[in-house]
Amino acid sequence: MSDFPLQPGSTIGVLGGGQLGRMLALAAARIGFATAVLDPDPRCPAGPVSARIITAPFDDPEGLRALAEVSDVVTFEFENVPADAVTRLIELGAAVAPGARALSVAQDRVEEKTFLNKAHAPTTVFAAAASARAIAEAVRRIGPPCLIKTRRDGYDGKGQTWIEHASDAAEAFARIGSKPAIVEAAVDFTRELSVIAARGRNGEIAHYPLGENHHENGILRRTHAPADVAPATTVQAEQIIARVLSGLDYVGVLAVELFELGDGKLLVNEIAPRVHNSGHWTLDGCEVDQFEQHIRAVAGWPLGPTHALAQTEMINLIGDEADDWPRLIADPAARVWLYGKDEGRPGRKMGHVNRLRPLKD
Amino acid sequence: MSDFPLQPGSTIGVLGGGQLGRMLALAAARIGFATAVLDPDPRCPAGPVSARIITAPFDDPEGLRALAEVSDVVTFEFENVPADAVTRLIELGAAVAPGARALSVAQDRVEEKTFLNKAHAPTTVFAAAASARAIAEAVRRIGPPCLIKTRRDGYDGKGQTWIEHASDAAEAFARIGSKPAIVEAAVDFTRELSVIAARGRNGEIAHYPLGENHHENGILRRTHAPADVAPATTVQAEQIIARVLSGLDYVGVLAVELFELGDGKLLVNEIAPRVHNSGHWTLDGCEVDQFEQHIRAVAGWPLGPTHALAQTEMINLIGDEADDWPRLIADPAARVWLYGKDEGRPGRKMGHVNRLRPLKD
Repeated sequence: MSDFPLQPGSTIGVLGGGQLGRMLALAAARIGFATAVLDPDPRCPAGPVSARIITAPFDDPEGLRALAEVSDVVTFEFENVPADAVTRLIELGAAVAPGARALSVAQDRVEEKTFLNKAHAPTTVFAAAASARAIAEAVRRIGPPCLIKTRRDGYDGKGQTWIEHASDAAEAFARIGSKPAIVEAAVDFTRELSVIAARGRNGEIAHYPLGENHHENGILRRTHAPADVAPATTVQAEQIIARVLSGLDYVGVLAVELFELGDGKLLVNEIAPRVHNSGHWTLDGCEVDQFEQHIRAVAGWPLGPTHALAQTEMINLIGDEADDWPRLIADPAARVWLYGKDEGRPGRKMGHVNRLRPLKD
Repeated sequence: MSDFPLQPGSTIGVLGGGQLGRMLALAAARIGFATAVLDPDPRCPAGPVSARIITAPFDDPEGLRALAEVSDVVTFEFENVPADAVTRLIELGAAVAPGARALSVAQDRVEEKTFLNKAHAPTTVFAAAASARAIAEAVRRIGPPCLIKTRRDGYDGKGQTWIEHASDAAEAFARIGSKPAIVEAAVDFTRELSVIAARGRNGEIAHYPLGENHHENGILRRTHAPADVAPATTVQAEQIIARVLSGLDYVGVLAVELFELGDGKLLVNEIAPRVHNSGHWTLDGCEVDQFEQHIRAVAGWPLGPTHALAQTEMINLIGDEADDWPRLIADPAARVWLYGKDEGRPGRKMGHVNRLRPLKD
């Protein structure tokens, strides 16, 4: 097993080589670490900035063995890592952070909300439902409209549908692929916020200022941070994320998506056991961004400061919006991040732009 | 030949894979470029963050061919690139920036000071001297004490010596290896400043605020920026560097080391046709750091903003000072950069630390 804190020159293994893996690799290099990435795609965004690229499916025993061999700690950039892969890495002697518990909670929406409520992190009313009949019953009990989501997988609005009447349950169940589901009460929220925090190996917690998020077609469009929120809202959000982090004995960066209700109360929408798109503003708006913070945490280093240096607006570049790069790079106010993806398919996150302005006093 | 501006996804070739190459590669990745590095050392710091590593001497024809083939533009991280290598790259059809003229001027201290004076960038009085006798003559004419340096090579205080009497010329000549030399009048300066600026392919120039530099044993120890200087000093420095950039028809980032005299006049000590250690403060103190700025310039992109976001002090970690990392990473005020070098040999730059505080009004 590795000794923490990891020495500079150690290797951080990352399951997943998308843009989050790429930005983790850049952050790791800044503070003297090398990165090894495992991804099925040899042309994944993290590849060109990683010391070692292991091209294999996420559950490939040989690939996992190679990753465990070269890595002093293994982390991941997405929550749908096969649970068996983590078990295998641990059997191979790898230190994996955040751990298997965070993954299993985040992979199943029913387990997630059950955990959250036990941890006193409030969510909307929900029920598990594995059939059209169970969905109909749940909708009748909770009251329509309800949001039906697959328990597992699905992101950026995929694998979910609204239901207005219990009698539409069969159709809704078919729309989500007839998979085990969660039925959620509609939430009458005023806006979406998120809070990102890290927990170190010694249990210390560092919170970033809240972000206010705007989605389009189920995909994050923009975040501005620090969000203009009441002090009590910040306290509430920090309490929620601290309960989640401690409840999972978590190591690394975690994001909590929140609904703010009309009375100021916050409900948890979902958690992401990883660096998060709504934290990309920290890349230019903070001294230590979420990626370096995650590397610090999993390496057993002390956490860095999280205060905002500027009021920052992050806008995602989705699909062919990245073709607008000549205009973006000519805008002196735009800090452009591009992920090195060659195809701008619809809905694909190609990059993002941060715009900074002085903090309000 | 390449079309400028380079498209995201293009490859930036870099001659030299030291820490400057490493930080160029990180900056290139941020804005969507890949890096190919040519360095004789397979374990060079830029290797683990570059898409392609070509392990070869800098003048190796096969290595240069491979670099030219994969690169949409080629740049360098140090000024002692063999002139023939650049000629060869150009013959192979590569776009090289900054060009051969900047290199030939920066590689020879007599050529450099001759160019500077012609460009109305003032320097100390100097003379070329290729023998002990010529050194003695120059010292008598200029007046001792004089600084004797080899015309070519030498950095961080290597290859130079002081002479107090013309009669010590033979000994001084031997101390610098009996190589062609430059004899320079001593400069009675009050402090050392540097100015860093970039020039784009369209001739636009962007200056960073001046840094104040402190050396120890011929090696940069710390820089603080923006330096506390009179507005007229900034104007003088910006005029000097603009003349140098335009005079060389330069593309990329260039640094000018300056002596500030008691009467406020600036003399050029030397120029570096590349990103520069005294500009590392921009990594945390500016929206666009010198590395991204250099990549933008050589890629034909518009230059980014150069204003300081914070008062920044940069301290180099030299030799075994990097062993102090556990204390440094625990200091919330320290932004730590480590270069991934495994051996902390005396005098070797292992990393640096930036400390930020709010700008003075």
